[in-house]
Amino acid sequence: MSLLKRINPFSKQNDETGFGTNPNGYGGRFINRDGSFNIRREGRPFWDRFSVYHSLLNLSAWKFTCVILLFYFSINLLYTGIYWLLGTEQFQGIIGQTAWARLKEIFFFSTETFTTVGYGRVNPVGDGANMVAAIEAMTGFLSFAVATGLMYGRFSRPRAHLVFSDHALIAPYKDMTGLMFRFASYKDNHTLTNVDVTVTIGLQIVEDGTPVYKFYSLPLERGKIESLSMNWTVVHPIDDNSPLLGFTAEDMRNADVEIYVLVKGFNDVYANTVLQRTSYTYEEIQFNRKFIPMYRESENGRTTILELHLLNKSREIN
Amino acid sequence: MSLLKRINPFSKQNDETGFGTNPNGYGGRFINRDGSFNIRREGRPFWDRFSVYHSLLNLSAWKFTCVILLFYFSINLLYTGIYWLLGTEQFQGIIGQTAWARLKEIFFFSTETFTTVGYGRVNPVGDGANMVAAIEAMTGFLSFAVATGLMYGRFSRPRAHLVFSDHALIAPYKDMTGLMFRFASYKDNHTLTNVDVTVTIGLQIVEDGTPVYKFYSLPLERGKIESLSMNWTVVHPIDDNSPLLGFTAEDMRNADVEIYVLVKGFNDVYANTVLQRTSYTYEEIQFNRKFIPMYRESENGRTTILELHLLNKSREIN
Amino acid sequence: MSLLKRINPFSKQNDETGFGTNPNGYGGRFINRDGSFNIRREGRPFWDRFSVYHSLLNLSAWKFTCVILLFYFSINLLYTGIYWLLGTEQFQGIIGQTAWARLKEIFFFSTETFTTVGYGRVNPVGDGANMVAAIEAMTGFLSFAVATGLMYGRFSRPRAHLVFSDHALIAPYKDMTGLMFRFASYKDNHTLTNVDVTVTIGLQIVEDGTPVYKFYSLPLERGKIESLSMNWTVVHPIDDNSPLLGFTAEDMRNADVEIYVLVKGFNDVYANTVLQRTSYTYEEIQFNRKFIPMYRESENGRTTILELHLLNKSREIN
Amino acid sequence: MSLLKRINPFSKQNDETGFGTNPNGYGGRFINRDGSFNIRREGRPFWDRFSVYHSLLNLSAWKFTCVILLFYFSINLLYTGIYWLLGTEQFQGIIGQTAWARLKEIFFFSTETFTTVGYGRVNPVGDGANMVAAIEAMTGFLSFAVATGLMYGRFSRPRAHLVFSDHALIAPYKDMTGLMFRFASYKDNHTLTNVDVTVTIGLQIVEDGTPVYKFYSLPLERGKIESLSMNWTVVHPIDDNSPLLGFTAEDMRNADVEIYVLVKGFNDVYANTVLQRTSYTYEEIQFNRKFIPMYRESENGRTTILELHLLNKSREIN
Repeated sequence: MSLLKRINPFSKQNDETGFGTNPNGYGGRFINRDGSFNIRREGRPFWDRFSVYHSLLNLSAWKFTCVILLFYFSINLLYTGIYWLLGTEQFQGIIGQTAWARLKEIFFFSTETFTTVGYGRVNPVGDGANMVAAIEAMTGFLSFAVATGLMYGRFSRPRAHLVFSDHALIAPYKDMTGLMFRFASYKDNHTLTNVDVTVTIGLQIVEDGTPVYKFYSLPLERGKIESLSMNWTVVHPIDDNSPLLGFTAEDMRNADVEIYVLVKGFNDVYANTVLQRTSYTYEEIQFNRKFIPMYRESENGRTTILELHLLNKSREIN
Repeated sequence: MSLLKRINPFSKQNDETGFGTNPNGYGGRFINRDGSFNIRREGRPFWDRFSVYHSLLNLSAWKFTCVILLFYFSINLLYTGIYWLLGTEQFQGIIGQTAWARLKEIFFFSTETFTTVGYGRVNPVGDGANMVAAIEAMTGFLSFAVATGLMYGRFSRPRAHLVFSDHALIAPYKDMTGLMFRFASYKDNHTLTNVDVTVTIGLQIVEDGTPVYKFYSLPLERGKIESLSMNWTVVHPIDDNSPLLGFTAEDMRNADVEIYVLVKGFNDVYANTVLQRTSYTYEEIQFNRKFIPMYRESENGRTTILELHLLNKSREIN
Repeated sequence: MSLLKRINPFSKQNDETGFGTNPNGYGGRFINRDGSFNIRREGRPFWDRFSVYHSLLNLSAWKFTCVILLFYFSINLLYTGIYWLLGTEQFQGIIGQTAWARLKEIFFFSTETFTTVGYGRVNPVGDGANMVAAIEAMTGFLSFAVATGLMYGRFSRPRAHLVFSDHALIAPYKDMTGLMFRFASYKDNHTLTNVDVTVTIGLQIVEDGTPVYKFYSLPLERGKIESLSMNWTVVHPIDDNSPLLGFTAEDMRNADVEIYVLVKGFNDVYANTVLQRTSYTYEEIQFNRKFIPMYRESENGRTTILELHLLNKSREIN
Repeated sequence: MSLLKRINPFSKQNDETGFGTNPNGYGGRFINRDGSFNIRREGRPFWDRFSVYHSLLNLSAWKFTCVILLFYFSINLLYTGIYWLLGTEQFQGIIGQTAWARLKEIFFFSTETFTTVGYGRVNPVGDGANMVAAIEAMTGFLSFAVATGLMYGRFSRPRAHLVFSDHALIAPYKDMTGLMFRFASYKDNHTLTNVDVTVTIGLQIVEDGTPVYKFYSLPLERGKIESLSMNWTVVHPIDDNSPLLGFTAEDMRNADVEIYVLVKGFNDVYANTVLQRTSYTYEEIQFNRKFIPMYRESENGRTTILELHLLNKSREIN
């Protein structure tokens, strides 16, 4: 029997994913594990497509520091070059005897100007050097403004700070089976309020001889909670309304299953709605395993401890 | 038969557009192609109406740089003028022999003060110059604050970053015809979530001898999608509920048709709801053309490529 | 017949205003014309109640500048005082011969330090002066940070920028009468999207011998529009569901009528939901007047002009 | 009769709290009085869990100032150490005769560099000192950027600014009893719009021999108001739908009752949705007491005064 016929006719198709249905045009998974979309844009100039803000916000702290240092030294080298071309005789107070020593002094004059420190031992007297210094000081001024904005943008950008389990599990649930995964906020003091989770499944199926994508909503045991202070195990019961009813592991592999997860909530540290995505492909689904609890009471019995290192811990069921 | 009678009686009128219905008071299209409203305000002072924030945010990077440079040189010229009037004898360390040389030195002293570099070779000793320098330094200080805010405002301002097709097409759709246009996000990594699109049509029609505007909602094949990672072709099927049922190209021209489009969604780079408008007038509607697909699989088959240069590409249908 | 009995029994009472119902504890109107609440807080320390952020954001540009200048001169006077107490011998480079001249030099040294200009002619050599200068420079640094935040907060704070008509009018509407007022956005390029308006009326009525406040929702001819690019005349039809049905001007005065208006919408310049309130008391209601149109076509017929100076213009009806 | 059987069967259970139901894993109250969650995270590195932004935003002004001062002096000591290792001969203009005097001069040179004041009397001539100074100036530059962001974040962070009564009271209400508490905004000019309050109760109950947590929604006399300009007394009527119907003080103690309160609204000073939580445990519930009014008319009768010091004032009822 074909896979198409095997799909539960009582399951609810989802035509509003925004994904296309023609596998010929598509390559690979739709959503990467980190929640980004597996897509590339072409046909417009790089600077049109490139999102400076997004890129700098998403850089790791380490890379961000490198970008800033690199920028700082490059721009000072640039200005040093200009001053050098204008000639060191346009400056007062230079004490270096060799060209190399004078070049270094010019470079440090440039850093003093760019950062607006301006000690003043070396200072411009010629018109050219004066004018370039006036422009460099303003450049520094504005770079500072940009850096301030980026810094603020980086640490104030609303995020969900969620961590998802590496695998989705299929395990006994009540008197049937269920598909489940779990997630938690890993940041102290970050609690999401009014959290919604939406789960959709994508299947690649042969219809009238041509392969097409079909999308189905996965109804959940519980699709929203009031506050996410702990972990949350999301369960899709494989019941009479589930598109997965009767599916074997083999079927899932054939259908190139991908499960799309979207979590939305209000983060009150940022006072903003945040969302985070992830997806599970066939390789990331495990059968006959169950999550083990990930919290315990503290020693003094007065608080609860969320054990984040247990997030991925599951045990086999026979 | 009059145009009014020709309008499909089963179509849904939209009385909540917020546009007026009296063409005598109105001129031209309601919404420009770039989504701004075709309206001008009068009767309040310029500074009341002028939105500095909006204006500076919407300036191109190039013009914004010019505005800043212009401001920088103007304010330094202003302060140079004041120092000059106070007299160069209020300064220590000036080495220029001619008036012109001294003027330049005063100008560069001003830039050093405004940017808070303060080399100190030239420095104020007179009370007047000292006081003006104190004020200039604070002005620079605050200008910097404003620049920082503007910079941050410019790159953190939530936008939809959508690009719409230049034309709306009327083409066969299923077993009838449909009005369609498409759009896509042109920025890498910018995906809209929970995207809604609303389409309204405005017609100018003669009722009891006087022309009036009538507005109708255009029902869509699909009015919302969960995520806009790709392009989206919005289709209004010209079916039994469509106000356009039975309309000829001639009718559309006579009715001075304008189609208003509003797209709303949540952009999670900015973590904010964003919206973008556009409109299509009669001239921007093409008949018997169909869009061609604008995405393809990558060479290695592991990702999908959105071909933005094909956004406006359509082919004739006979 | 008592006023209470005269209130239309089909009108809808509003118990969710958040206002109290006991006139003994209340004084004056609930909402001022500018939309602020007519209320004062007591019983907590001033700094608890005082909202620095709100206060500085709402100051006029003129007063804000004064606050900044005042702060700048005060803090420099303070530091000048400290340096003076430490003694001018802690400084190098002072050239003044009299105490007054030296005091001025110390003051300007302070401004140079606070703004981080630091010319360096006058510079600290004593330990005390050096330490105070180090602290002053940091104070300046942080003041700048605060100023930057305030500047940005001031011009990026989301506002509705609406202007309401000075009076609400009661005038013939269709085949009955209606209560109407109008408003418009006075800022170029600021358009509200999905605008909602809610109107509630408060009446002071004697019930069982004691006066109480009663609140009723006023149903509107149209309570929301899709975009507010023009002016909007809000109309409450005094029909069978209106609490005002059968009310005379005299009745309104006796009931100490107050009409609360709340407008909400999405401002896409700020990309934020904004709201603005106002209220009309009995004195601000005019009878038998009708608003005159406030827009016209431009000379070339290609755009529409919103005439804001006509906002309050109405004509008598007989 | 067991507590479980005593729970009103008509009350509505709440399965969406996001709290667990197994008391063995949980310790103490779920929500602290200040609204934070009584939970601790383990199993991920400190810097992963630690939320710098949240921590610095929530520090008191006093502690925040100390953190900044501490940072300022530490980083200058660090740089002083580096300069000292490079040797004072790398500097020009040092006038100290002793090592200690020179060390101090180096320290003040460092503060001048970090704050970008740069008087220039002492200035680097050696390559090492020059390079370190260039880096220190940039560090100062960026620290300033961070400070600016933090300052702005601190005073622009949307908060509800609510103060809750210390106790929830159980008192006669209409012809039954009710559970009530009250709260008010303590900041001048801060009014919440469209305020929602949600109240949930948690009970620890023995079911089939094992203790479990059960959660019930508490229906309110009024769950939302349009604007919170005054205080609001929230009332849960203990009627036929209340889980508390028939509960004695003893029962509440046994069930280890905890009442979770969540208030949400739109604060238009911040133009943002804000929320605030609190909870009341058994110890914080008082019986047979009623709140006394907390507002009065002003002397001139033109405004209303909210008396915040009366927030916790109640009187006994017999």
